[in-house]
Amino acid sequence: MRLAVLTSGGDCPGLNAVIRAVVRTASNEFGDTVLGYEDGWVGLMEDRRRDLYDDAEIDRILLRGGTILGTGRLHPDKFKAGLDQIKANMEDAQVDALIAIGGEGTLKGAKWLADNGVPVVGVPKTIDNDVNATDYTFGFDTAVSVATDAIDRLHTTAESHNRILIVEVMGRHVGWIALHAGMAGGAHYTVVPEVPFDVADICKAMERRFQMGEKYGIVCVAEGALPKEGTMNFSEGDTDQFGHKSFNGIGQAIGDEIKERTGYDVRTTVLGHIQRGGTPTAYDRVLATRYGVHAARAAHEGKSGQCVALHGEDIELVPLEDAVGKLKVVPEKRYQNAQALFG
Amino acid sequence: MRLAVLTSGGDCPGLNAVIRAVVRTASNEFGDTVLGYEDGWVGLMEDRRRDLYDDAEIDRILLRGGTILGTGRLHPDKFKAGLDQIKANMEDAQVDALIAIGGEGTLKGAKWLADNGVPVVGVPKTIDNDVNATDYTFGFDTAVSVATDAIDRLHTTAESHNRILIVEVMGRHVGWIALHAGMAGGAHYTVVPEVPFDVADICKAMERRFQMGEKYGIVCVAEGALPKEGTMNFSEGDTDQFGHKSFNGIGQAIGDEIKERTGYDVRTTVLGHIQRGGTPTAYDRVLATRYGVHAARAAHEGKSGQCVALHGEDIELVPLEDAVGKLKVVPEKRYQNAQALFG
Amino acid sequence: MRLAVLTSGGDCPGLNAVIRAVVRTASNEFGDTVLGYEDGWVGLMEDRRRDLYDDAEIDRILLRGGTILGTGRLHPDKFKAGLDQIKANMEDAQVDALIAIGGEGTLKGAKWLADNGVPVVGVPKTIDNDVNATDYTFGFDTAVSVATDAIDRLHTTAESHNRILIVEVMGRHVGWIALHAGMAGGAHYTVVPEVPFDVADICKAMERRFQMGEKYGIVCVAEGALPKEGTMNFSEGDTDQFGHKSFNGIGQAIGDEIKERTGYDVRTTVLGHIQRGGTPTAYDRVLATRYGVHAARAAHEGKSGQCVALHGEDIELVPLEDAVGKLKVVPEKRYQNAQALFG
Amino acid sequence: MRLAVLTSGGDCPGLNAVIRAVVRTASNEFGDTVLGYEDGWVGLMEDRRRDLYDDAEIDRILLRGGTILGTGRLHPDKFKAGLDQIKANMEDAQVDALIAIGGEGTLKGAKWLADNGVPVVGVPKTIDNDVNATDYTFGFDTAVSVATDAIDRLHTTAESHNRILIVEVMGRHVGWIALHAGMAGGAHYTVVPEVPFDVADICKAMERRFQMGEKYGIVCVAEGALPKEGTMNFSEGDTDQFGHKSFNGIGQAIGDEIKERTGYDVRTTVLGHIQRGGTPTAYDRVLATRYGVHAARAAHEGKSGQCVALHGEDIELVPLEDAVGKLKVVPEKRYQNAQALFG
Repeated sequence: MRLAVLTSGGDCPGLNAVIRAVVRTASNEFGDTVLGYEDGWVGLMEDRRRDLYDDAEIDRILLRGGTILGTGRLHPDKFKAGLDQIKANMEDAQVDALIAIGGEGTLKGAKWLADNGVPVVGVPKTIDNDVNATDYTFGFDTAVSVATDAIDRLHTTAESHNRILIVEVMGRHVGWIALHAGMAGGAHYTVVPEVPFDVADICKAMERRFQMGEKYGIVCVAEGALPKEGTMNFSEGDTDQFGHKSFNGIGQAIGDEIKERTGYDVRTTVLGHIQRGGTPTAYDRVLATRYGVHAARAAHEGKSGQCVALHGEDIELVPLEDAVGKLKVVPEKRYQNAQALFG
Repeated sequence: MRLAVLTSGGDCPGLNAVIRAVVRTASNEFGDTVLGYEDGWVGLMEDRRRDLYDDAEIDRILLRGGTILGTGRLHPDKFKAGLDQIKANMEDAQVDALIAIGGEGTLKGAKWLADNGVPVVGVPKTIDNDVNATDYTFGFDTAVSVATDAIDRLHTTAESHNRILIVEVMGRHVGWIALHAGMAGGAHYTVVPEVPFDVADICKAMERRFQMGEKYGIVCVAEGALPKEGTMNFSEGDTDQFGHKSFNGIGQAIGDEIKERTGYDVRTTVLGHIQRGGTPTAYDRVLATRYGVHAARAAHEGKSGQCVALHGEDIELVPLEDAVGKLKVVPEKRYQNAQALFG
Repeated sequence: MRLAVLTSGGDCPGLNAVIRAVVRTASNEFGDTVLGYEDGWVGLMEDRRRDLYDDAEIDRILLRGGTILGTGRLHPDKFKAGLDQIKANMEDAQVDALIAIGGEGTLKGAKWLADNGVPVVGVPKTIDNDVNATDYTFGFDTAVSVATDAIDRLHTTAESHNRILIVEVMGRHVGWIALHAGMAGGAHYTVVPEVPFDVADICKAMERRFQMGEKYGIVCVAEGALPKEGTMNFSEGDTDQFGHKSFNGIGQAIGDEIKERTGYDVRTTVLGHIQRGGTPTAYDRVLATRYGVHAARAAHEGKSGQCVALHGEDIELVPLEDAVGKLKVVPEKRYQNAQALFG
Repeated sequence: MRLAVLTSGGDCPGLNAVIRAVVRTASNEFGDTVLGYEDGWVGLMEDRRRDLYDDAEIDRILLRGGTILGTGRLHPDKFKAGLDQIKANMEDAQVDALIAIGGEGTLKGAKWLADNGVPVVGVPKTIDNDVNATDYTFGFDTAVSVATDAIDRLHTTAESHNRILIVEVMGRHVGWIALHAGMAGGAHYTVVPEVPFDVADICKAMERRFQMGEKYGIVCVAEGALPKEGTMNFSEGDTDQFGHKSFNGIGQAIGDEIKERTGYDVRTTVLGHIQRGGTPTAYDRVLATRYGVHAARAAHEGKSGQCVALHGEDIELVPLEDAVGKLKVVPEKRYQNAQALFG
C-alpha cells in the first residue's frame, strides 16, 4: 500500500515526530511506502509531493520543530471545489489513504473528504489544546513549557524591582495555555478568554499582595482575553469566524490600565511565536509518535473518517465528527480551582 | 480544621508543588491551618512537625525539587507498632486529617492507618509511574525529560565516533521511564524490566543499523532490565521485596557484552540521581498542584482511605486499595509498539 | 572587619552569586562579617540594612536570579546631597568598606563616594555588556542565552509558514546582546544601535534569501536600533541622558515596514524582561562568583576606588574611573564580521 | 581559492559552527570554495572528501553537536609516513590551504604539516579547555553547562535524603570542567587532577557540613583525579602518553571510601558522554563562529603554521607551537580560591 501524509494549519512542535512515526510504522510493520504533500491542502490540490523514506534523515526530524512538509491554509470554498482534482492527484500518485495532521479546521476538511469518498485518517494538532474528543494534543505541552520557563524568569526580575509583570501567552479562543502556564509558573492572576475579566479584580489582587508585604505580582493573560462589558475601553478589536471578538495587544492594554489605576510600575512581555517553535518536549514527542503509529495502522487497515485521540493512557480512534464543530474550552470549575491558588 | 502533610519514600520533583497547593487551598478555600511532619512516617511517630504558612516562602517552593519536609523510609513492622503513638501525636497537634504523599509503599501505609481509624488521604508519587489507579504520577515527566535530554546529547557524539552508546535510566521494577525516554529520544533499542532481553537481539539490531550505512546506535536500558535465562552471565544480583531479581550495573554489563560480541566501540552512561532531582517540568507542576488542591479538599471534607488520581483530564478520588498491591507495568503491546520504531 | 554590600540599577542574573561569594569569602578567609543594604543607594541613605550570614540560605541563592537585597535607582543630585548621611550610617553600622554592585551609573556613584573618603570597591554588572575596562560582565551570557533559545525556536516556525520573524532583544545603547544572540541563533540580519540601519537593506537581504529558495528569514533587532536619517518614519521617540534618541517598539516598526515594502508575512516577538530574569548560566555564575571573591578581598585589604574586572582568564582590579564615563560599544569591525555570516 | 577543512580528535559541541563559519566566510567574503575531509586525518590520507556548499543545509548545522565530517584518531607514525600522500591528495583536489580543527594532538599534527610545506591553519578545540595560547576553547562552556545542570538537580534530591552525592565529570588530565562546574553548581568539595586529594579531607569537609546542621553534601570529581600517595587504594589504573597515572571509576571509588569511613549514605553519578554531545551553548556558538571566520581569512591570506586563539575579547593568530607541547592546567591559586567557597 501507499500512504500519503500532509500537515495543515498553524505549525506546532511534534508535527515531524508524527510524520516520522507514520513513515517508520508503514515501512517496518507493513512494508508500505509513504509520500508527503507539501504546504497542506494546497500541495494536495497542486500535486506537489515527495517520497518519504525510512532513512537517517527521517530519523533525525524527531527533535525538529515545525514541519518538513510545510503547511498552509486554504479557504474551504476553494478546497471543496477541488474535490475532483484531489481524487485525481491521489489516484495518479497511487495513494491508498491519506493522513491529515492539523487542528479543528483541518480535521473538518478531512471529514468532508472522507464523507466524499476519500480514505482519510485525522491526527489532531494544536498548541491550544482546543480539539474535542482527545484529552490532549501534542504541541500544547511544549507551548506551556516555554511559557512557564518565561514566567519562571520573570519572578526574580519582578521581585527585584517591585513591579507587576504581565505576560501575554497564546490562546485566541481558549485559555488552556494560560491556565496551565499560569498554574505551573505560579502567576498571581490568570486571565482566559472563556471568563471575561474585570481589570478592577486584577488590581485588587495585586494590591492585596503588596499590602501583605509581597514586592511584586505576575499576571498571565491569554491573547484572546476579553474584558467584561463596560469595564475597559479598547481601540482595536475585531470579530473572527467563531464570532469571538478579540483585541490585539490585550496584554499591553491590561498592563497600561493597571498602571494607571494603581500607580505601580508595570511591564508587559508578549511571548509570541517562541511558544510554537523549537524542539518538542519529551511529552509531546511521545504523544506525537504514538499518534503517528496509530494513524499509520488505521490508514493501512482501511479506516476512514476517523481520528486518533488520547484517552487516559491509551490512543484510540474516534469519529472525526466528534473532534470538530466546537472547541474544547476551559471549564469554569478548572478556572476557579486554579484561581484559588493565585494571589 | 487542621491538616497535616508528610512526604515519604524516594523524593521526586513536584513534592513541594503538592505541599504548596495543600497549604494554599486549605488556607484560601477553608481557612484551615496546615502543619508538616518531617522525614515521612518517622517524623509523624517522633512528633517532629512544623507549621506551614501560606506565605511568600511557600509560594517559592513550586519550582524546587526534593521536599522541604524531608523524607524517609520506615519498616512496616515498626510503623504498625507505632499506631498508638501516631494517634496520640496527631491528637496532641490537633490534626483532623493527614495527607500522605508517597509511592506504593507509602500509600499502603496510608491505607493501613485509614483502616485503623486515622483519617488519611493519599497522593500518589513516583518518578517510575508504577502506581496503579492513576494515569500518571508527577515526577515521571521530569525524569523522562531529563533522560530524553541526555539521549538527545548522545546522538551527535555517538555519530561522530561510530559508537554504540548505552544509557541506563531509572526503573528497577517497571520500564516506563525507559519506554518513554527511548521513544522521545529516538533510541534504537530499548530494554525494560517487564520483557527479558537477549543481548543477541540488541547486537543484531545494532549490526543491521551499521549495515544500512548508519554510523552509530543508542540503547536505552532500564536499571531493572533482566536477561533471558541463560543468555548472559552476571556476577552481581539480588532479590528484592517484590521477588524481582536485579543486577547492579546492568547498563555497563550490556555494553561490555555488546563490545565483546560485535567489536564495536561501546560507551555507557548511567544517569542516576539527576533524573529525580531539580525543578519539575511544567507538566509535573500542574499535575502536582492539582493533586494538592484535590487532596486538601478531600481531607477537609472528611474523606479517608482514598487517594487522588488522574483519569484522562480529571483528578478523581479512588480507594487506596486500588492504588496498592501491584505495580503498574508496561503492557507488552506498548513495548512492542515502541520497539517497532527502533532500529 | 565588617563589609557592606548593595546592588543598584537594573537587576541581572548573577547578582546573588556575587553576594554569596562576598559573604563566603569574608567569612571563610578573614572571619569578617557582612551586612547588606536594601534597594541600592536608597537603602544606604535610609539605613535599611540586614545581616548576611554564611549559612544554608546564602548558599542557595547561587541559582536565583534577581537580588535578595532588592535594587533601586537614585537621582545623582539626591545621592550627592546625602554624603554625610551615608557616612553616618556606615559609621553607625561599623562598616569598614562598601562593595557596590551595579552598572555604569552605580560605578559612577561608587567612584564619587570613594573620591569623598568612603572606602568602596565596585563590581560591574550589566546584561548589556557595556561597561568599559572589563572583557565581560555577568548577566550578559544569560541574556544572550535566553535570546538565542528564542531565536532557535523561531527558525522552525518561520520556515513552516514562509514568514519573516523579527525578534527584538534588549540593548538600548549598545548592541552586544543583539550581536551575540544574532550570531549564536543564526539570524539572517542583525541591527544594533551603533550602526544606523536602512530598512531597504534588510528587505534586500530577505528578498535575496527567498530568491535563493529559502523559505523564511529572521531579523534580530536591538531595542535601541535607529534608522538612518530619512529612511523611515517613527511616531514615538525620545532622547535619554546619553543624548541617544530612541524609539519604543522599534522591532514592531521594522516588521510593519518590511511587510509593507515586500508583502511578505511578518511577525514580531519582543522578548522583554525574560532576558534579565531567572537562573544565571554556568558562565555567569562562575564570573559573578569570581568577582565576589576578589571584591571581598580587595575590600578587606583596604582597596578603594577600584573595580573588579575580567581580563582574559584573570580577575583584576582597575580604577573605577576606567569603568565609567563612556559605554563599551560594538566595534564597527565586529559588526561587519558578523554581518558577513548573515543572509 | 579552494580551502579544505577537517575535524580530528574527540568530538565537541561547536565543531559544526566552525565548519559553517568557514564555508560562509570563504564563500561570502572571497568567493572561495570549500571541501571537507571525512573522519579527520584518516580521510585526508584516504582522500575521502566532499564539497561543502553555502546553502540551507550548512546554515542549519549551527545548532547541531558533533561534526558532520566525522572525526578520527590517527597514530602519529602513520600520519608522518603519509606526508606524500597528503600532499598528493590536496594537490589532486586543488586545495590551497587546510583548516584543521582539533585538540592538542591535532594541532601538533597541523604544525608538523606546516613545517613540511603544507599550508595549514589550526582551530583549537577541546571540551577540557586544556589548550595553551587561547583563553578558552569552544565546547568547554557547553560541557560545564551540562555538568552544572546535573549538579543543580542533585542538590534537592541529596538534601531530601541526607545523602552525599558524588558527581564525576570529564577531565582526564586537567580539572577545568570540575573547577567551573563545581563553582557554578555550588559543590561542597571539588577534586581536580592537578592537585592530589586526600579522601580524609573530603570526609572532614562533609562531616563539618553535617555538624553545622546541613543535611547533605555534593562532591565534584574530575575523572582524572588522583589520590595523594598512600591515602587510598585502587585496583585499576594505568599510565597514559602524558605520563599521567589514572584510574577508571575514580568517582565511584571516592564514594565507596567516604561511605566506609563516615557511614553516610553516598551515591555516585557519572555524567559521561552527555557532557560532549548536543546543541552548543550560545557562548560556544559565538566563539566557534568567530574562530571559523578568522581561520577562513587566515587560510585565504596564505597564513600557515598558525592557530586562531581567544585573547580577552579578540580573536588573534598565534604560532601553532605556542598551542602545543604542554597542557594548560588549573593554576594552584585558582583551585584554592574556588575551594575557599566550598563547604
